[in-house]
Amino acid sequence: MGNAKKRVLSGMQPTGSLHIGHYLGVLTNYASLQPDYDCFFMIADWHSMTVFYPEFRKAHSFIPGIVSDWLAAGIDPEKAVIFLQSNVPMHSELQLILSMYTPVSWLERNPTYKEKQEIIDRDIDSHGFLGYPVLQAADILLYNAELVPIGEDQIPHLELTREIARRFNHFNVKDNDIFMLPKPLLSRFPKVLGTDGQKMSKSYGNTIMLTETPEKLDQKIRKMKTDTNRVRRNDPGNPENCPVYSYYDFFAEDKKSEISAACRNASIGCIECKKLIIERMNNVLDPFRTRKNEVDKNPDIVADILRDGARKAKDAAGETMDRVRDGMGFHF
Amino acid sequence: MGNAKKRVLSGMQPTGSLHIGHYLGVLTNYASLQPDYDCFFMIADWHSMTVFYPEFRKAHSFIPGIVSDWLAAGIDPEKAVIFLQSNVPMHSELQLILSMYTPVSWLERNPTYKEKQEIIDRDIDSHGFLGYPVLQAADILLYNAELVPIGEDQIPHLELTREIARRFNHFNVKDNDIFMLPKPLLSRFPKVLGTDGQKMSKSYGNTIMLTETPEKLDQKIRKMKTDTNRVRRNDPGNPENCPVYSYYDFFAEDKKSEISAACRNASIGCIECKKLIIERMNNVLDPFRTRKNEVDKNPDIVADILRDGARKAKDAAGETMDRVRDGMGFHF
Repeated sequence: MGNAKKRVLSGMQPTGSLHIGHYLGVLTNYASLQPDYDCFFMIADWHSMTVFYPEFRKAHSFIPGIVSDWLAAGIDPEKAVIFLQSNVPMHSELQLILSMYTPVSWLERNPTYKEKQEIIDRDIDSHGFLGYPVLQAADILLYNAELVPIGEDQIPHLELTREIARRFNHFNVKDNDIFMLPKPLLSRFPKVLGTDGQKMSKSYGNTIMLTETPEKLDQKIRKMKTDTNRVRRNDPGNPENCPVYSYYDFFAEDKKSEISAACRNASIGCIECKKLIIERMNNVLDPFRTRKNEVDKNPDIVADILRDGARKAKDAAGETMDRVRDGMGFHF
Repeated sequence: MGNAKKRVLSGMQPTGSLHIGHYLGVLTNYASLQPDYDCFFMIADWHSMTVFYPEFRKAHSFIPGIVSDWLAAGIDPEKAVIFLQSNVPMHSELQLILSMYTPVSWLERNPTYKEKQEIIDRDIDSHGFLGYPVLQAADILLYNAELVPIGEDQIPHLELTREIARRFNHFNVKDNDIFMLPKPLLSRFPKVLGTDGQKMSKSYGNTIMLTETPEKLDQKIRKMKTDTNRVRRNDPGNPENCPVYSYYDFFAEDKKSEISAACRNASIGCIECKKLIIERMNNVLDPFRTRKNEVDKNPDIVADILRDGARKAKDAAGETMDRVRDGMGFHF
């Protein structure tokens, strides 16, 4: 039965503590995939080295918090393999092998390559950063993942993985292709706004963390600007211009039309509207906080889960590497 | 006592069967290092993938012959660690890590990068080929090798390894540097001429293989052109223009002045001169052939030696990776 499920691989870089943007964008997606797919969820620490190379220690310090956030969000080590990329040396082996089959021009064409170099306030023009799509291909192909949950904008990246796999297959044909070409599992990764109305991101300092206490959450929401054109209580507001209203999408969808109308005719004030969303956010975050507390009570749990996950991931990756080595003609 | 010896690492790509150019240029050097150094000698199969990616099976098929050539040339698994690069996954792990610290511009500046692309009759513009100096750095640093036996022309490559190590150390300082900077062990790698007077090389079809039978050796030397200006037996010759005479350097140094004078005054003919060098070459190759026969009688010996070598190499490499992971701040 387990084997009949399609395999899915996804990863998240340990670049900071998680905020509600991660929760709504990624963790709920992960949790929803568990019943129907054979899931491998990876903390991609080697990928984070592309940016964190001068302070890798910092990236690694985020890992326990991230794993406990995953668990608190319902990702279940009994249902999914939760593992740390650097615990599975086969990722680097396959990356090295695939790099021999990947023309530099394919990587230079990758639009993210130049874009990210401009965004990141640090010199990331390294051989490792140029090659991150090769490592990504290794991540996916190593688990023979049939599906990769991505948004529309990520399709070109997956296409590069498919091109690399195709080229490798072409030069190492035996009876069958060594790699199956992975397909996208198109997923909606909603954009979550931060407290200042921009996209929620650590670098903008506008996050609501998953570990926020109820008091801190209250404070952050209360301080949020709403529709800046609604100056007085009696002015009608426009919910489309209000980042607080955007949270109703995720936490109080049932209340959206009511609140929207009440805002537009000024029958509700911003304070009242905020009170309601704070209550709803706490409804979601309270059980999260309880579970996270449970996890954090046992400091060994993260190490145990990662150890167990590494074992399962190595088993799966080892099978693929046996096939790769056999297909390529390794004698020893 | 063993630990007081300085460690040396060197590698050879499995790109073909070995000829007397390899013997005189590399294997005698390896054998001479064994008594004085803690030697790690590696068959660099991952490196050979840069060129052999469409037919890696072929590169791997050379390995048993190469190992038995090494043994026949006096490289002794009791005195040196003989291992296959791809059996030690830490090479790829450290390569991946170091790639994050290696600017692409350092690699593009590497003169061999463009040169080799022009020489090799195959598209090798891959991410892996661009990064081969990073893999080379990983090879050396993984064993904490203090010395690398290289010719003068290889000094810039070792300097690149030192630059990568320095940059890694800079960003990952703890109490001590993680990597020691390796130094060159300057060695003379004599240029051996082929039967046509050009540099001996498989691609020129002018080789004398280590496995040549005495009959075949006789035939190859007899067919060699000598000084083309010496047309008749009584013409005086110029040994400087004679590839056969160049072999006296390696196999009959004691006879050089005598033969040189006799050639210049035509008191010896080319046939006689060739007879002498054939005899001397057989004096060297006969014990080689005997030992090689011994090795080849036992088909398990190569696999056993590589298995044992991999174990020793992994032990040494594992120690380094522990230091790397600790220094970088890996928590798991």
